[in-house]
Amino acid sequence: MTTRLTILGGGAMGTACAMLLAEQTHQQVSIWVRNQDQAVEIQSTRENRRFLPGCKLNDNIFITSDINVAIHNCDYVVLAIPCQFLRQSLQLVRNSLPESVPVISVIKGVENGTFQRPSQIVTDILGPRSVAILSGPSHAEEFAHRLPATVVASSEDLELACRVQQMFSTERFRIYTNADTLGVEYAGALKNVIAIACGICDGLGFGDNAKSALMTRGLVEMQRFGVYFGGNPMTFTGLAGMGDLITTCVSPYGRNRKVGFRLGSGESISDILHSMEGVAEGVATSKSVAEIALRHHLDLPIMQQVYEVLFCGKTPQKATMALLERPPRSESAEIAAIVEATPAL
Amino acid sequence: MTTRLTILGGGAMGTACAMLLAEQTHQQVSIWVRNQDQAVEIQSTRENRRFLPGCKLNDNIFITSDINVAIHNCDYVVLAIPCQFLRQSLQLVRNSLPESVPVISVIKGVENGTFQRPSQIVTDILGPRSVAILSGPSHAEEFAHRLPATVVASSEDLELACRVQQMFSTERFRIYTNADTLGVEYAGALKNVIAIACGICDGLGFGDNAKSALMTRGLVEMQRFGVYFGGNPMTFTGLAGMGDLITTCVSPYGRNRKVGFRLGSGESISDILHSMEGVAEGVATSKSVAEIALRHHLDLPIMQQVYEVLFCGKTPQKATMALLERPPRSESAEIAAIVEATPAL
Repeated sequence: MTTRLTILGGGAMGTACAMLLAEQTHQQVSIWVRNQDQAVEIQSTRENRRFLPGCKLNDNIFITSDINVAIHNCDYVVLAIPCQFLRQSLQLVRNSLPESVPVISVIKGVENGTFQRPSQIVTDILGPRSVAILSGPSHAEEFAHRLPATVVASSEDLELACRVQQMFSTERFRIYTNADTLGVEYAGALKNVIAIACGICDGLGFGDNAKSALMTRGLVEMQRFGVYFGGNPMTFTGLAGMGDLITTCVSPYGRNRKVGFRLGSGESISDILHSMEGVAEGVATSKSVAEIALRHHLDLPIMQQVYEVLFCGKTPQKATMALLERPPRSESAEIAAIVEATPAL
Repeated sequence: MTTRLTILGGGAMGTACAMLLAEQTHQQVSIWVRNQDQAVEIQSTRENRRFLPGCKLNDNIFITSDINVAIHNCDYVVLAIPCQFLRQSLQLVRNSLPESVPVISVIKGVENGTFQRPSQIVTDILGPRSVAILSGPSHAEEFAHRLPATVVASSEDLELACRVQQMFSTERFRIYTNADTLGVEYAGALKNVIAIACGICDGLGFGDNAKSALMTRGLVEMQRFGVYFGGNPMTFTGLAGMGDLITTCVSPYGRNRKVGFRLGSGESISDILHSMEGVAEGVATSKSVAEIALRHHLDLPIMQQVYEVLFCGKTPQKATMALLERPPRSESAEIAAIVEATPAL
């Protein structure tokens, strides 16, 4: 039986997901690409030369710039649109997408201003329906070139999570299920702030000890934030948390790490943002997190220092000293506090 | 008031710890270096040219090859000896070290054959006494060159953990306390096995997605092992676990990662071990872990594959496929199992 999947978004991630799904030949994949010329080019050349050069598209992938053609009769919609454009894109299909069609998000980030997670934006615009999240360490360029990867499929609808696991799985792409969508989505957004901190650390030439400690202590802050809003702390130590955090902080290609690296090397944030192509999501996320931390009295020292470097003109050197000079702490006491704040454990 | 600390072991780690401790001028530090010529050279040149070139030693550091001179009247002993030589070195002082002298171990590893942790070997040879562990991401070469680092001091004797925190802290060396010594010590040993897996992954050219997933899933196995023997799963997500794991798997200098890298590049294990200087602890640890996993029915698939590559002639390619082809799993179910196995949570 044929399964029809529609991917909204023709960037590297959307295209790479289409390639994965199309490996199962009973799955028919449509990609909606906003720009008509690009859609025509990809459809005719069978290659997304702009975002994923060198990867041939299977015959069971169809590309169109007409969103209504793309979603016609589809069984699932996959969202691969930058988080800040998600709401306006969903508006285009709010009257044409039946409630029975589940939505799978591969978006990492939260909406600036509202701090809504992608799954919240989906139900906000499209009404209540089953939503799943696919997240974890997953540079599109790598898995599109058939390198192995392992990620999580997360949904409150466990049956949907298992179907996503089946649909996306290949012999090199392994998927675990996870029921904690809130934790998975917050992890995917918050890791970008820690990646800026790790970039600063690299820019200052601080070495592997300091950077590993930043990731580890950054993960504690991600847990603290997630647990406060009802997430499971151990989701953050899983693939969507620690796994994605490491890839984002280690890979030389990540935009968030790069912003940090240039800050640590002495450039100003305005020079960096003016000269960058593409969006470093962590910059806006950092501002929202600082506001939420203030409002809810959350102790997030690393993320606070990133915010102060980005938005208050603090030097990376002073931010480092502020972190190192804090009073001595107990890891055991912090573990106890996180466990205590998690009724589910 | 003067505090006298004696470090057993004049390698990079022992020397770097001496430098940290000597920053507080009321702390008098002796280093016991087994080889007399080396001891004389370091004492006269004020530099450990073999293991830590370019680092000047403070005046309050004294080096000797006479272990009884080294420990005379000391208030604390710091162990910085490779794990496999710890037992025989402690035999030298078993009759001369008063029970009142606490021991601080900076050793990472377990004893081949017995699988005893350093703190267990200490009480085995020296009798019951307070023991603390200093662990975490801490390449000696980096913190000796005054780069920042953050680690844990762990002891069942909380007062000792706090004293270790005070004694070792500098403006760039930050220390958290942690009461779970078993978890801290097992983490420091088991991460070497995962580092071999990550090296294999690098040698096969699998990229950042696969490697981050290996670290994340490897940490789950470390937790599963530690929790079975009474550790706290969240110790493994702390500085001694995740923190040290990342440094060990990412740094190009680690011996365990290098063994894996050469295996993944197609070399045989016998060629690798014959041509290496120094010991890759993870090789022996891998064998012990496989035996323990079999005996106690622990599910440690990554560590099992490392063992089979090292000791059973399995190719890295076949080991990779064995991991990717396992039946689909639930991260949530695994979290629940780990939580259930931890009475303390």
